[in-house]
Amino acid sequence: MAKKEFVEQITSQEENFSQWYTDVVRKTDMVDYSLVKGCMVIKPYGYGVWELIQHELDSRFKATGHKNAYFPLLIPESLLMKEAEHVEGFAPEVAWVTQGGTEPLQERLAIRPTSETIICSMYSNWVQSYRDLPVLMNQWCNVLRWEKTTRPFLRTSEFLWQEGHTVHATEEEAVEETERMINVYREFAENVLAIPVIVGNKSEKEKFAGAVRTYTIEAMMHDGRALQMGTSHFLGQNFAKSYDIKYLSKEGRQEYVWQTSWGVSTRLIGGLIMVHGDDRGLKLPPKVAPTQVMIIPIAAHKGGVTEKAHEIRDMLLDKGLRVEVDERDQSTGWKFNDCEMKGIPLRIEIGPKDIEAGHVVTVRRDNFEKKTVEWNDIASEVPSLLDDIQKNMLEMAREHMEERIFEVSDYGEFKKVMEDTSGFVRVPWCNETECELEIKADTGATSRCMLTEEETHIPEGTKCIHCGKPAKKIMYFAKAY
Amino acid sequence: MAKKEFVEQITSQEENFSQWYTDVVRKTDMVDYSLVKGCMVIKPYGYGVWELIQHELDSRFKATGHKNAYFPLLIPESLLMKEAEHVEGFAPEVAWVTQGGTEPLQERLAIRPTSETIICSMYSNWVQSYRDLPVLMNQWCNVLRWEKTTRPFLRTSEFLWQEGHTVHATEEEAVEETERMINVYREFAENVLAIPVIVGNKSEKEKFAGAVRTYTIEAMMHDGRALQMGTSHFLGQNFAKSYDIKYLSKEGRQEYVWQTSWGVSTRLIGGLIMVHGDDRGLKLPPKVAPTQVMIIPIAAHKGGVTEKAHEIRDMLLDKGLRVEVDERDQSTGWKFNDCEMKGIPLRIEIGPKDIEAGHVVTVRRDNFEKKTVEWNDIASEVPSLLDDIQKNMLEMAREHMEERIFEVSDYGEFKKVMEDTSGFVRVPWCNETECELEIKADTGATSRCMLTEEETHIPEGTKCIHCGKPAKKIMYFAKAY
Repeated sequence: MAKKEFVEQITSQEENFSQWYTDVVRKTDMVDYSLVKGCMVIKPYGYGVWELIQHELDSRFKATGHKNAYFPLLIPESLLMKEAEHVEGFAPEVAWVTQGGTEPLQERLAIRPTSETIICSMYSNWVQSYRDLPVLMNQWCNVLRWEKTTRPFLRTSEFLWQEGHTVHATEEEAVEETERMINVYREFAENVLAIPVIVGNKSEKEKFAGAVRTYTIEAMMHDGRALQMGTSHFLGQNFAKSYDIKYLSKEGRQEYVWQTSWGVSTRLIGGLIMVHGDDRGLKLPPKVAPTQVMIIPIAAHKGGVTEKAHEIRDMLLDKGLRVEVDERDQSTGWKFNDCEMKGIPLRIEIGPKDIEAGHVVTVRRDNFEKKTVEWNDIASEVPSLLDDIQKNMLEMAREHMEERIFEVSDYGEFKKVMEDTSGFVRVPWCNETECELEIKADTGATSRCMLTEEETHIPEGTKCIHCGKPAKKIMYFAKAY
Repeated sequence: MAKKEFVEQITSQEENFSQWYTDVVRKTDMVDYSLVKGCMVIKPYGYGVWELIQHELDSRFKATGHKNAYFPLLIPESLLMKEAEHVEGFAPEVAWVTQGGTEPLQERLAIRPTSETIICSMYSNWVQSYRDLPVLMNQWCNVLRWEKTTRPFLRTSEFLWQEGHTVHATEEEAVEETERMINVYREFAENVLAIPVIVGNKSEKEKFAGAVRTYTIEAMMHDGRALQMGTSHFLGQNFAKSYDIKYLSKEGRQEYVWQTSWGVSTRLIGGLIMVHGDDRGLKLPPKVAPTQVMIIPIAAHKGGVTEKAHEIRDMLLDKGLRVEVDERDQSTGWKFNDCEMKGIPLRIEIGPKDIEAGHVVTVRRDNFEKKTVEWNDIASEVPSLLDDIQKNMLEMAREHMEERIFEVSDYGEFKKVMEDTSGFVRVPWCNETECELEIKADTGATSRCMLTEEETHIPEGTKCIHCGKPAKKIMYFAKAY
């Protein structure tokens, strides 16, 4: 009965994946819609996931030598407009401040859609000599892009993110940094979010506005669509020239610097939901679960049950785990379902019979496996179960992805995969924007990610899957969020 | 020679305290001015202090049951305008977004000057029954108030802060929460920032726009002026009525909720600088110093010096301290001065002679005390020195403040204290806005903080220090930042 009610609240994935997503983010109290079009409220349960993501990423940024800073929210129009490609990419989606207090402004101020321009204007003062390099900074902040169609976490007008901005003396160092950070993202996605990703370069059309080259990590959602999870941009000297960032080299010459920028956002939470979730709701990997273990007392009014539940909680808290006891005034069935819907990795059941027997029952959210654990073993068994859940979730997601990457040999097969939205295709491609646009118009698929120079080995005579011109790249195409 | 250069970079406090402040925040790389009027860039050294502040406060908020969330940056004009006093207080300093992408907006959007209005609009949906209460949320974010005169950290148009917003079933619970949080701020200011504060209520004129009662912590800067460091507001049912936040009580009645809000901002960093700093620069309490210990190798090219410096660093890092070795290509004198200017609590000197002798020399930033510490004692002695520095800095600041609080007995003395800007006066006062305005016009002093109801014991016949009407309150007046 209780289960039926819960299930009815969430549309099944099969029936309508998009509605399933909306139901899950709302019913689990991760997010709510606000009165401002396209802007979301991140509720404590969703924000708790974001805090864990921040903590994990921030320690990786610091371990690779970066320091956090904070740059202004507002960017004068003239400053935003200095780098031509960047303007073209971002100007159409900027929100403009035109009045400050009671006075109309002389110059409009953009709410940052990203901070290259304001940060470069500062770097231009800060960098004078080779002794000032490299500059390795990151900021955690909100940004705003005026979006027409929005979905919680996946695409919202305002979102939270981090943006790294670095300055280097040489091209080689900057490329190295760009690659280092996309690898930090890859490792984080796999080991923390339990999301396997494909790493590669964006096409000319899809790269960041103002970059020489964009690296991306792309993940496959449960419905076979792609989600861009994070990007790292090699900016070359484009911004250095527009914003006049020069340094005096050891040899006494004025040289333009080489730059990178890289970012991930609250969009990652959308990815987490769509990769791991099922018809019962969320399924959170232990490393980013605000509650890792929920202890549910059964017949809590009976002697010793509540005390034992608290004792186990305190023992696990001491081990550094995030644990709660569900003592709400609800039925046990309701609590089981709520715990599953919220995606809590491990549930511990304890009732009078368990107390007699001197054990508890654990139930994993990833595979619903039940296990009886003796009291003496709880402190060692629970952390090891959580480790196992973390690993298993990555493996399940990897299997799902690998089964749905198709190396199709003709365009008919390509179209068939896209009609069924059954996954990614990996194909030889001409590397021309016109061809990419035709494929999109035809199939709904966009280019996601191509093998890097070093990984690309195309046999002589190989042709583009669509236009038949000589293939230059190996590209993944997919329908995407 | 090196010292002279450094000293010349910073105006002395005696000569011009305001210029001293500006010199210190710039020369120590805490902050820089941006191209946007009134908006600052917080550089890594300043942001490092903010991260430590956030960490300490956030754990206190969580320990008192609060969870973090995130609400939108933009607030529709009609929503902002619902609570009359609030509008009057904030509307004149709001920045307005009037264009989104290529389209003019139908309704202007305010960049949040504070978030009561947007948060109350959500609470109105979320709170239905007594079971939903209390709601205990906090957010870390940026806010913007269009300021005419700005100074880094102390008053900037955009600043970073946290704002707690809570909802309760009863007046009693809400008052308790308001007081709990001002006490969290007090304890944090004293034990983490080493800043003693006076706790009390704001006058009607100075209270938060829309609050019933505002609690404040006020600190005395080195120059005798006051700085408001944090506030906690009892909102009563003012916002509940304007934003329609009602709950169904246990007894089945619809009741308006009772609310609080409370916040501190990057302004705290300005307080840190102005309470503790001296003519050599910053002086940071160990708990918020991004670098707690700087090891300076002397004659680093000589055998074993660098190795030993690294060994000591690693040993102290293992103890959980924030330690660096200054290996820059600069003279020892320059490094000593730089370390003092940056306010690093403890310096460790190690050279060939120290290695021979099997010890190091430590120099405290708070009182310049030198000490010789045997190698075997470093791991225990350094943490204990840092503890002592933390305590001593609080004591020094407390002494400075207590010497400059004057219980003057007539208005002439009051004026004299303000003419010399030598501190706070603590006086019986009539509690009328008109009198407060006259005092301000006359002396430049504003009302800072008054004893709470419970603390106020005024002998019969006591008169207001200024207007001679019967005294109702004991009020601290001071010139303020």
